[in-house]
Amino acid sequence: MNTHPAYNPDRLFPADPGTRDIARRLYLYVEDMPIVSPHGHLDPQMFVDNTAFPNPTKLLISPDHYLTRVLHSAGIEMEELQVGGHEGKGPRHAWRLFCENWDLYAGTATGYWVEQEFAHVFGIDPSRICSEQADSLYDDLSEVLAQPDFRPRELADTFKLDVLATTDDPLDDLEAHATLRADASFTPRVLPTFRPDAYTKMYNPGFKGNVEKLIDTAGDGKTGYEGYLQAMRNRRQYFIDHGAVSTDHGIHNCQTQPLSAAEAQELLDKGMRGEATFEEALAFEGNMTYRFAEMSQDDGLVMTIHPGVYRNSSPSALKKFGPDTGHDVPFALDYINGLQPLLADFGENPDFHFVMFTMDETAFSREIAPIAGYYPAAYVGAPWWFIDEIDAMKRFRAATTGTTGFSRYSGFIDDTRAYCSIPARHDTSRRVEAGYLARLVAEHRLTEDGAADIIVDLIDNSPRRVFKL
Amino acid sequence: MNTHPAYNPDRLFPADPGTRDIARRLYLYVEDMPIVSPHGHLDPQMFVDNTAFPNPTKLLISPDHYLTRVLHSAGIEMEELQVGGHEGKGPRHAWRLFCENWDLYAGTATGYWVEQEFAHVFGIDPSRICSEQADSLYDDLSEVLAQPDFRPRELADTFKLDVLATTDDPLDDLEAHATLRADASFTPRVLPTFRPDAYTKMYNPGFKGNVEKLIDTAGDGKTGYEGYLQAMRNRRQYFIDHGAVSTDHGIHNCQTQPLSAAEAQELLDKGMRGEATFEEALAFEGNMTYRFAEMSQDDGLVMTIHPGVYRNSSPSALKKFGPDTGHDVPFALDYINGLQPLLADFGENPDFHFVMFTMDETAFSREIAPIAGYYPAAYVGAPWWFIDEIDAMKRFRAATTGTTGFSRYSGFIDDTRAYCSIPARHDTSRRVEAGYLARLVAEHRLTEDGAADIIVDLIDNSPRRVFKL
Amino acid sequence: MNTHPAYNPDRLFPADPGTRDIARRLYLYVEDMPIVSPHGHLDPQMFVDNTAFPNPTKLLISPDHYLTRVLHSAGIEMEELQVGGHEGKGPRHAWRLFCENWDLYAGTATGYWVEQEFAHVFGIDPSRICSEQADSLYDDLSEVLAQPDFRPRELADTFKLDVLATTDDPLDDLEAHATLRADASFTPRVLPTFRPDAYTKMYNPGFKGNVEKLIDTAGDGKTGYEGYLQAMRNRRQYFIDHGAVSTDHGIHNCQTQPLSAAEAQELLDKGMRGEATFEEALAFEGNMTYRFAEMSQDDGLVMTIHPGVYRNSSPSALKKFGPDTGHDVPFALDYINGLQPLLADFGENPDFHFVMFTMDETAFSREIAPIAGYYPAAYVGAPWWFIDEIDAMKRFRAATTGTTGFSRYSGFIDDTRAYCSIPARHDTSRRVEAGYLARLVAEHRLTEDGAADIIVDLIDNSPRRVFKL
Repeated sequence: MNTHPAYNPDRLFPADPGTRDIARRLYLYVEDMPIVSPHGHLDPQMFVDNTAFPNPTKLLISPDHYLTRVLHSAGIEMEELQVGGHEGKGPRHAWRLFCENWDLYAGTATGYWVEQEFAHVFGIDPSRICSEQADSLYDDLSEVLAQPDFRPRELADTFKLDVLATTDDPLDDLEAHATLRADASFTPRVLPTFRPDAYTKMYNPGFKGNVEKLIDTAGDGKTGYEGYLQAMRNRRQYFIDHGAVSTDHGIHNCQTQPLSAAEAQELLDKGMRGEATFEEALAFEGNMTYRFAEMSQDDGLVMTIHPGVYRNSSPSALKKFGPDTGHDVPFALDYINGLQPLLADFGENPDFHFVMFTMDETAFSREIAPIAGYYPAAYVGAPWWFIDEIDAMKRFRAATTGTTGFSRYSGFIDDTRAYCSIPARHDTSRRVEAGYLARLVAEHRLTEDGAADIIVDLIDNSPRRVFKL
Repeated sequence: MNTHPAYNPDRLFPADPGTRDIARRLYLYVEDMPIVSPHGHLDPQMFVDNTAFPNPTKLLISPDHYLTRVLHSAGIEMEELQVGGHEGKGPRHAWRLFCENWDLYAGTATGYWVEQEFAHVFGIDPSRICSEQADSLYDDLSEVLAQPDFRPRELADTFKLDVLATTDDPLDDLEAHATLRADASFTPRVLPTFRPDAYTKMYNPGFKGNVEKLIDTAGDGKTGYEGYLQAMRNRRQYFIDHGAVSTDHGIHNCQTQPLSAAEAQELLDKGMRGEATFEEALAFEGNMTYRFAEMSQDDGLVMTIHPGVYRNSSPSALKKFGPDTGHDVPFALDYINGLQPLLADFGENPDFHFVMFTMDETAFSREIAPIAGYYPAAYVGAPWWFIDEIDAMKRFRAATTGTTGFSRYSGFIDDTRAYCSIPARHDTSRRVEAGYLARLVAEHRLTEDGAADIIVDLIDNSPRRVFKL
Repeated sequence: MNTHPAYNPDRLFPADPGTRDIARRLYLYVEDMPIVSPHGHLDPQMFVDNTAFPNPTKLLISPDHYLTRVLHSAGIEMEELQVGGHEGKGPRHAWRLFCENWDLYAGTATGYWVEQEFAHVFGIDPSRICSEQADSLYDDLSEVLAQPDFRPRELADTFKLDVLATTDDPLDDLEAHATLRADASFTPRVLPTFRPDAYTKMYNPGFKGNVEKLIDTAGDGKTGYEGYLQAMRNRRQYFIDHGAVSTDHGIHNCQTQPLSAAEAQELLDKGMRGEATFEEALAFEGNMTYRFAEMSQDDGLVMTIHPGVYRNSSPSALKKFGPDTGHDVPFALDYINGLQPLLADFGENPDFHFVMFTMDETAFSREIAPIAGYYPAAYVGAPWWFIDEIDAMKRFRAATTGTTGFSRYSGFIDDTRAYCSIPARHDTSRRVEAGYLARLVAEHRLTEDGAADIIVDLIDNSPRRVFKL
């Protein structure tokens, strides 16, 4: 029996022996359940092609900003990690840097996930991630990845992947999704998600071109704001036709004040001319958040938001490596003052599903749980990104449950770009839920039978119910 | 022996056996102490009339927005819960909805309190709250409520109610309070609390009429701002004459900048004409917060504030069901920058008692504990509303005690509209305190004897000392 | 064996027996390590003079606002505690007040530290801190302090003081530091720290005189903003020549937007004329935060910031007792939007060390860990001031580690004015780290061997690495 902690059956459970025993029993109910992943960032083409992963670095390191940021903070150049298409000194060199600096990940969720992947996906002892064995590990892992069982589709079976949502540009043709839907031999449901951020943020480069293309392509010949709204509606329908159940919005703040058509047209014009102030751009973005909620009343798409992130805070890294390379930083927001117009008009509709994610955990008990604990439309989004780590997940539970119970929870979200981390992330959630529920049982706040029902509902039913799966 | 957790003598205590043993022993010191409740929302007329509660729904469901909001979030119409005077499909139908959806309350403080009420007030097994037994439970509970022992005054004895404060309009005649004070057969002290919010918030409907009536009734013939202040002083004295010990202020933010009489008069005029901007209204409200503190220097009333709540966020619900129906949502505030004028002028006075409540738990360690840990006037208000749930109470203790100790604590506040939840809420507080202190003993930060002294002081002396009872 | 908790070898460790056992073993690795204290507020002249401490009050009470604020909150006049040079009714009277009110400190970190000092520095049973023994305790402690072993230098040996940084005015001649460096018989390194706050905050009294003196003294004959910058550079170099490794900045907020030389000159002129608005003053201060970071690129000084404090909130106390007397209060800040200009230009430089302290613990998981987890220059500052208490230190670990690991930690900072509390504070940190790591081991997230390596790195290597010692 391997003694590495990654193999310990009690990992992540509370240390108190009595509570741990309860957690063990609760975990058994959900340990082997299929994976429902209603939000993430994988490329669906991966399943169409179903080719072997090129090498350990391209699979595990380069695309995962959770992982590269830690190495970068230690002064390692991101090009040597093959981030943003850079080749650096090759994949084996990147791999060595990773192994040599493995100690940096101690105590992090990222480190835990990687160890779980080695132990439970690749069947390789994670204690081999070290300077001395970097090369042999690279070779052995390469060999594993070359096996037919480790191609994307085969892994989907191994992972018991039931539902996997991708995140897609409104003008994406969704051909990969169509191909997968048409392929009876592939059972997981791979669903597109409508993410219109590139078309709503005037302050980002490319806005003008994006909007022109959107209106031209999908505006039904209408122009201006009218064509813009029409194109959004049309593309949402196209996504629905390809299986989409939700839209996703990385909005800057929580503004949702609607504008009149004339006001919106004026701001849109300014934005297209590159003359909008940041405040005007946010007013337009806030109007669109409201409009997307309005569209959901008609087409039924679930709406998820995750506001409050300073994107690409390092201009030099953005220029050299592109976005999503680890230097986005959250900031605090006022939820209720921003969201009130949207909630006032659509929050009372139980058929509208509005999931509020946050990277600011202080909002959980102060705003998000109170909102979701009243409005039939509002749901508490799972903790994600930065606060998807283990202790933060525990804090999330304790911050929301006492106020709002379990019923307003979105279900676990992995939000990942790292395919092989999916089982580890979901298993982490299951263990954290088991530990939390075990504490409530140990404190005589729930019966163990009640807790068993709840954990099954949290893991399997919640995401299906909230995301209308 | 009933095995439902509600009966477990160790409920809410920490799971670690050693710590739990200490908690048990500490709890014994306070388990049977009388209840001191210096802030709440019961109608004192209830004790004057002392009639039986009409039915389970009117007692437990309709008036309690803690409870109805959870059902509403699941899509249940509030009129069917008989909220806001609506009859829906009758009380029995509302009761059935409650029982059918009982699972929604798992893990919530509200659910815990209700179970405690059934087990320890009504003597009914809480496992009967379920779809199947909804009707028989309604009947059995109705029978219980018809017994003489379950009328308000008799319950007050059962609850060991020593002090109970109500929350009252400045123009209330306080006749019920006078009647109760004059009645030697009724031993609990039922004290009015002066809450002038309806007379300070220009942005609320009814402001003009309220202020006119106030000045006319109690302004000693003076007019304008001078009459307004005089009327406030007079009504405070009237409250004091009827036993009041404190004033309560649901202020929008923490502004306390005083205005000159001329500035205040100008804003008051604008407000009366309905022409004040929101910023002007807040400036006037902030001035009044300062003025109420100033009045307390003279008349000695304890002053409590609870800023930072977006009231009635759902306009449709406000219109149909009225205020206090579950859609108030907290937001974050800057305490010290707002409160500094008040603290600078009155904070150094130990005879002035200024209790800071918050619904934003982040303020506890950052602002409230530091302020109360220096200013002799300032006290850390108990966690309430949304953060009065069990785990939040634990976080409150851990967030304030290390900085400020136990001596600056307001004492527990139940703030309730649900009469029968009072014993459960106070018992919850006693158990949480016992658990926290037990941890400090187990970590060798306190002796058990020292912890015993502290828990007695927290439960019984703190509220009496801070509220000058 | 004394049964007072201060002597218990398991103090502060987690209560769960299994976890406690692990904590005990981990603590042994660091229990006796030398003390590295890269930031604090002691007077270096103390070590030059090496005279006995005058009396218990002057040593323990008067200079320590952690301690006096608690007594003050209970209504005790600060002059009676001999704060700010006041004599009150003499040191023995102050001591009695302290002893009589000792219960106020139960559960506080301050109380814990004082007990540790008595038990482990003075060799006096801390249960003697009580009303009855106040006088005999004063006498006995006075006797202890008169012993040669209890002079500053001898205590430095007892404490195993290896590095101690002071905080100094840019125009300080650093003669005490020079004397100590030249004295081969004194082994601890006592390092100055460059703290220019009095020269950057236009809104503080004395700004004009300070700046004039700075430019005259060290401006190389240059005038205006140019002379000001040159003088800063020169004095930094002077500090470096006297052993300084870092600069410290108690900035008001997080602004770091650089100004052009012309803009800065204009604001400086306004400030010198006393005509700058608060916003203009903050713009100048923000520019200087950026400029100090810029200077660090050249001279290599580590830069520490601790923004977000309302200083001297009680004007009457400021007037009577001076600054740093317990009425500073933290407030919330936006880190990333403020720091982005600095991080954009200097954050990618691994040779620049930028340590972010905060008194707002919500920033740890939301902003500080994400920033330090990406930027090679950025470090997570240890929790300090208000949140240097025991439970807050635990929360700090749990808020930062899962995201960023251990490698971005500044090392423990005692930030103290209370010399004899230094061992207790560092020991507290070691025990908290042992307890946290023990939990990770008990939850199978780390091996015990790995945890042992980490705790040694945290306690000894981290501060040396981050502060370039």
